[in-house]
Amino acid sequence: MQKTTSSISNNISFTRGVPALEALPTTLFSECLQAVLAGPDGKTVLQYGHNGGYVPLKQLLAEQYHVDVDQVLIGNGSLHLQDMLTAQLVQTGDVVFTEQPSYDRAIKTFRRRGAKVIGIPLALDGVDITALEEALARYTPRFMYIVPDFQNPAGVTTSREKRQALAQLAEKHGFYLVEDVPYRTLRYSGKTLPLLRELNPERTITVSSYSKLISPGIRVGYLIGPRDIVKPLIALAEDTTLAPVLPTQAAVLEFHKRGYFERNLESLKQLYAPRLQAMISAIKTYLPGIDFAEPEGGFFVSITLPQESNYQHLLQRAKEQGLLLTDGNGFFADHLNAQANQAHTGDRFVRLPFCALTPQEIEAGMQRLAELVRA
Amino acid sequence: MQKTTSSISNNISFTRGVPALEALPTTLFSECLQAVLAGPDGKTVLQYGHNGGYVPLKQLLAEQYHVDVDQVLIGNGSLHLQDMLTAQLVQTGDVVFTEQPSYDRAIKTFRRRGAKVIGIPLALDGVDITALEEALARYTPRFMYIVPDFQNPAGVTTSREKRQALAQLAEKHGFYLVEDVPYRTLRYSGKTLPLLRELNPERTITVSSYSKLISPGIRVGYLIGPRDIVKPLIALAEDTTLAPVLPTQAAVLEFHKRGYFERNLESLKQLYAPRLQAMISAIKTYLPGIDFAEPEGGFFVSITLPQESNYQHLLQRAKEQGLLLTDGNGFFADHLNAQANQAHTGDRFVRLPFCALTPQEIEAGMQRLAELVRA
Repeated sequence: MQKTTSSISNNISFTRGVPALEALPTTLFSECLQAVLAGPDGKTVLQYGHNGGYVPLKQLLAEQYHVDVDQVLIGNGSLHLQDMLTAQLVQTGDVVFTEQPSYDRAIKTFRRRGAKVIGIPLALDGVDITALEEALARYTPRFMYIVPDFQNPAGVTTSREKRQALAQLAEKHGFYLVEDVPYRTLRYSGKTLPLLRELNPERTITVSSYSKLISPGIRVGYLIGPRDIVKPLIALAEDTTLAPVLPTQAAVLEFHKRGYFERNLESLKQLYAPRLQAMISAIKTYLPGIDFAEPEGGFFVSITLPQESNYQHLLQRAKEQGLLLTDGNGFFADHLNAQANQAHTGDRFVRLPFCALTPQEIEAGMQRLAELVRA
Repeated sequence: MQKTTSSISNNISFTRGVPALEALPTTLFSECLQAVLAGPDGKTVLQYGHNGGYVPLKQLLAEQYHVDVDQVLIGNGSLHLQDMLTAQLVQTGDVVFTEQPSYDRAIKTFRRRGAKVIGIPLALDGVDITALEEALARYTPRFMYIVPDFQNPAGVTTSREKRQALAQLAEKHGFYLVEDVPYRTLRYSGKTLPLLRELNPERTITVSSYSKLISPGIRVGYLIGPRDIVKPLIALAEDTTLAPVLPTQAAVLEFHKRGYFERNLESLKQLYAPRLQAMISAIKTYLPGIDFAEPEGGFFVSITLPQESNYQHLLQRAKEQGLLLTDGNGFFADHLNAQANQAHTGDRFVRLPFCALTPQEIEAGMQRLAELVRA
């Protein structure tokens, strides 16, 4: 056995997927803000802006995604863009599909805007296509929300074959794919797979953000989609928030221009890759025999505890032992199905964000968790 | 007659109420951002934030408004706060009162969230209290939206007596007063009147922003209200946008701490006061005999053209003459009432924002307008 948990007296938090504090580029970002405000666009970024974001950053994103600039909307973080997109696409009672489990705040957002949210079981290589086809026989969703790379919460990456199947089903049944790809460039190993947008651009709306790649506090997220979606969405964004937050958007562009983005991304990978390895090792050591997706990037690993484990009142018991967990049920859109399907149930589902913890904290946390769930 | 309009070849825009470009404090704000990012909260403001805004700025606002810090929510501009407030308070079909005319984007926001918006005629000293009482005999609104100081669009300041009446009616009939006060501190002459909040704090929700006082591009707006309103609204804000934009909020606090806020406010008054005077003089010179509120501050003067003037297709004809106007109808919530009431009708209503124009441009613009509406 390793050192006891008492050697780490602080709480260990396996709750939110936040960047490591030490990874936030205060000096580089400050330089960029200064350059923007002293530069030719200094006045522009302090004035009211239009057009769905800081135009030169929209241009950069248009180049990166091989789309036209009028297909890009930059907003105050991707969650708010998803909120407005849902307001635009969904009438009360419309159906939205998510992977099951899926990002809890996205599920909540779709519901708040009146959607009936149906979860399609997620396997270790992406959503269960047979289950999706069965669901499509009963419902045509307005859209399906997918996190194809290093999924939040499960860490799953959708396989190439399943991406192809999703692109085809969207076409066949006439629904949109909303792909949320904030972790995509944080790949620590393996090879990048195509975006859903690359497989079916007319049916895909891509949302992403700089929260995991530069800073969450700057709230710069973006959305790329077909013109007939993006144009009215820009109008709705302007009606809702009047204008974008320009200084931080312009500083993100400067961050790219100066080559800081690549340099920062490399540092993040150096910092996070060993943490992911520590998490995978700790699961295998302390909770042997559990099936889980071993991600090649991103922020999250998740496990489903075995039926026979002691998961009753786990959150409360963990908290008393200085281990903070998120309620697994929030990631399951469809509680009833989740109960019926023995493979996944929220009570036994534990998300394990690893980026903001040292390998030592990760190991200590998993040791605590293993003790708590011992039958 | 003065110089002809041909001496100014550019378009003159009487459309949006934007600050003068030369008034945007690029250097001072950049200093503040640098100080924040180099300071003890540098990492904090780049990380995810909670609690409805940057806590030290919430503390400053709580002191300024004599409330507790948990009564303050800072968001990405006041329009979005009003959008979320409406989502929280209004069910589809609920009634909201506005002054008539009122801020067009606010009317649109309330409607988008399902409200039935009813405009109460605005006199030169605030809303018509008799008309308000008549409307209250028929409806109890969820809230009444009021811009008590230098109203957008009319430039009207609500008198002390009418503020008192509003506070009492809100109490008697059980509705909220949403007072929007972004221009309040931009007073160029005369004496400050009490906030509605000071007269009835339990029934008043105050919204304001730094858009007119520092910069619109930073999107820092705030809301002050009773705890039972603000607490769930903070939860809704967190669900909607996940986290606030922290660097600009922290820089606003630094702007205050360094004494830049007072200094900047004084410069704004020096710049804008002569522009207001130029607008008032130009109206009296070129459109003599029109009744209008002569504001003592803010961004707007508005006029209602006489019945006998030539106001048909005014926007289009003005545009052809290089004069950009906003459609007056957008400021009238209730078109039918507006038609019936000869005193106010959107077709004849012209808003005249003056801050971003030089006195010369203002005079030339008003001269063009007078020529266009000559019967």
